[in-house]
Amino acid sequence: MDVGGIEMKVAKFGGSSLADANQFMKVANIVQEDERRKFIVVSAPGKRHDHDYKMTDLLIQLGTAYVKDEKYKSYYITIMDRFTTIINELKLDQSIVTEIEERLKSIMSLELPFDEHLDHFKALGEDSSARILSAYLNSQGIESSYTNPKDAGIILKEDDTGVQLCESSYELLANLRDKSGVSVIPGFFSYTADNKLKTFSRGGSDITGAIIAAGVKADLYENFTDVDSVYTVNPTIVENPKAIPILTYREMRELSYAGFSVFHDEALIPAFKENIPVEIKNTNNPSAKGTLIVSDKKQSEYSVVGIASDTGFSSIYVSKFLMNRELGFGRKLLQILEEEGVSFEHVPSGIDEMTIIVRDTQLANNKEDIIVERIKKELSPDTVTVHHNLAMVMVVGEGMKETIGMAQTATTALGEASVNLEMINQGSSEVSMMFGIKANDLHRAIQSLYAAFFENK
Amino acid sequence: MDVGGIEMKVAKFGGSSLADANQFMKVANIVQEDERRKFIVVSAPGKRHDHDYKMTDLLIQLGTAYVKDEKYKSYYITIMDRFTTIINELKLDQSIVTEIEERLKSIMSLELPFDEHLDHFKALGEDSSARILSAYLNSQGIESSYTNPKDAGIILKEDDTGVQLCESSYELLANLRDKSGVSVIPGFFSYTADNKLKTFSRGGSDITGAIIAAGVKADLYENFTDVDSVYTVNPTIVENPKAIPILTYREMRELSYAGFSVFHDEALIPAFKENIPVEIKNTNNPSAKGTLIVSDKKQSEYSVVGIASDTGFSSIYVSKFLMNRELGFGRKLLQILEEEGVSFEHVPSGIDEMTIIVRDTQLANNKEDIIVERIKKELSPDTVTVHHNLAMVMVVGEGMKETIGMAQTATTALGEASVNLEMINQGSSEVSMMFGIKANDLHRAIQSLYAAFFENK
Repeated sequence: MDVGGIEMKVAKFGGSSLADANQFMKVANIVQEDERRKFIVVSAPGKRHDHDYKMTDLLIQLGTAYVKDEKYKSYYITIMDRFTTIINELKLDQSIVTEIEERLKSIMSLELPFDEHLDHFKALGEDSSARILSAYLNSQGIESSYTNPKDAGIILKEDDTGVQLCESSYELLANLRDKSGVSVIPGFFSYTADNKLKTFSRGGSDITGAIIAAGVKADLYENFTDVDSVYTVNPTIVENPKAIPILTYREMRELSYAGFSVFHDEALIPAFKENIPVEIKNTNNPSAKGTLIVSDKKQSEYSVVGIASDTGFSSIYVSKFLMNRELGFGRKLLQILEEEGVSFEHVPSGIDEMTIIVRDTQLANNKEDIIVERIKKELSPDTVTVHHNLAMVMVVGEGMKETIGMAQTATTALGEASVNLEMINQGSSEVSMMFGIKANDLHRAIQSLYAAFFENK
Repeated sequence: MDVGGIEMKVAKFGGSSLADANQFMKVANIVQEDERRKFIVVSAPGKRHDHDYKMTDLLIQLGTAYVKDEKYKSYYITIMDRFTTIINELKLDQSIVTEIEERLKSIMSLELPFDEHLDHFKALGEDSSARILSAYLNSQGIESSYTNPKDAGIILKEDDTGVQLCESSYELLANLRDKSGVSVIPGFFSYTADNKLKTFSRGGSDITGAIIAAGVKADLYENFTDVDSVYTVNPTIVENPKAIPILTYREMRELSYAGFSVFHDEALIPAFKENIPVEIKNTNNPSAKGTLIVSDKKQSEYSVVGIASDTGFSSIYVSKFLMNRELGFGRKLLQILEEEGVSFEHVPSGIDEMTIIVRDTQLANNKEDIIVERIKKELSPDTVTVHHNLAMVMVVGEGMKETIGMAQTATTALGEASVNLEMINQGSSEVSMMFGIKANDLHRAIQSLYAAFFENK
């Protein structure tokens, strides 16, 4: 896509890409390297090492302590110290330190309900990242300006389900295209039409980047993080797994469902809706190939692109003789769940049996007992039993539907690893096959599936 | 079980076992052979050869023609001729012919609504079978009496769902135990407390036999038919398949669901509820081992006892982005089906997808269009598509749940036969694994599964 003759990229940099001055320098190099990178979205500084704190967490601790009238000074000092160190190491003007400190003080002096007040503290991390990066880019001779998300065009509204984007934002955002130089925009928050600051509950800065990409109709949305690419399987389970060069949105979504946590898949929806490809890149190794996420692709080398897994599932098994003649049985069962506010993941059913797979979190607060009691009372089943400690394994790939023998390869791999199958769900999704197993068997299962789909080719 | 020192069996003989005089003689031999066969339940004479009519069908044609004032004489003659031939060949007294003809004439003279009137015609087949068999047993020196089902104790009632047995029947039936000689009871019908004749809609004489067996607390319910046993797979698909020596009720029910039509499984419920074993035997080869159906069994030689299949399924596929976050989506979908009176077989679901498997018959009369339209309008999905010509293959066996590698064996067999899997449903039932495939692939699939589970051992 080439609108107006200029190709445009939106690049979003995550917390680890902005953890210290050295990381800011890497980011500046990446921005400088490609003049199509016109819109830069930034997170708050992340951890510099495993035992470090993220800036956002420090701000939450400061805000909470301050508002609750507890000791807050050490947080204040740590926060200002980190910003000051970054700014000094980047050899920027001290006025930026002063500016950030003035902003922090003015946030502290706000009189707002707790949650709204805390949102202001939280947003300072991203906001300061953007100011520092913009100043640093200018110091390196790259024309750049800090752009507040509301000035960029992101107008929010709040309803029952949370914070939403006003549709009118896209028209405003389109104007950004004409802005000269590089715009650096803080992620994670923006404002309502009447100037209330709101943070995004899910996906943080990823969603800001996706909104900007959709708004300016970017040709590519680059998502810089600290991994070279998305891997075919969790690297903590399989050593040095293969990278995934290209993924479809659908594949990404299925993988995300079951524990692929490169980013929150729903955050990318604004970009997906506009068919903008998303590229996962590594700030620390920008020449690595990365992973491209697209709406469509040619059949890849493998029919399976990845294997994801997640634990923390339970099953509710209900059996009743002649259930399949009882019109409405399934509906009544799901209605009980709905009335208890429990959403289910799957409902495999037999002739006289139904199993409902739910996430454990859905059964907390005594919901399990309540639901089992209601099922017993309202549906008079022969048996109701609940099993915990289930894991779901998902084998994902667009080629799946057309490929004979995928199920065979998968079940053979699981059989060889002595993994008993509690559930197979195949055919409902066009791009995945799901296996329910005992959580204890998970590592063995994944390793065997990886070997079967990625090593024996 | 041995109540009062005498073991008791109920033996039911199907239509093919009573198709002509020679078959009646075989039945009499079987009754004579084992004095525990105290209660004999009979069907109407069945087909003598492929192009023959069943007596019940002839009676329905006679009744319909007579009531509608159409030509009926040829049916009348054919019916009386068949009874007369049987009675003459059994060398029984002509009074039985006269008696049957008198009963037929008195049925014709009844003044009743069409359906009720037709029930009287239909019941004459079983009733006459019982009278003839009882007379023949007596002529062979076996003390025997014809027992009307109501006199036996079977009292019916009618409600919204059809004809039901009054619970009080079982007390009455218990008295039968004390009756001397062999009681021959016509199957398929009985009467309400106020003497209305009712026929059973499903399972015919099988259900009468199961009720009697439960009522007299029989030690065994023998179901005589024209096959040596239940086979592991449909003999029209695999030549000379292995017999199943012993089956559990649950296995039987799963097999029956998908096309094993030795008898209607629900007909056996009264016997199952009393834990009475059911034995399938062949009237034409009574020394054959048969198949025993029990409530529990030791793990058999094979974990899989049989492979059943059925065609005539369709799938309705519904996808909607973020479906799994929409509380109540699944319930609303099933509610549409319920409101349209459509019962579903399975509902495999993915993250953003649900598939509903239904029998084609459920989608007749334009239901398909109505349902698709309602789903589109009420649930705003991204896609709704319907696929026809699906077949379900069911691999059944009590050992299944504990056996690692069953899925592997099955999917390998299907893969080797180049059968693409539209759906796998495993884990919902404890005794079966179900595969959805294209109907065209069915024979190949079954043959390959049979080879894998029963020949390579």
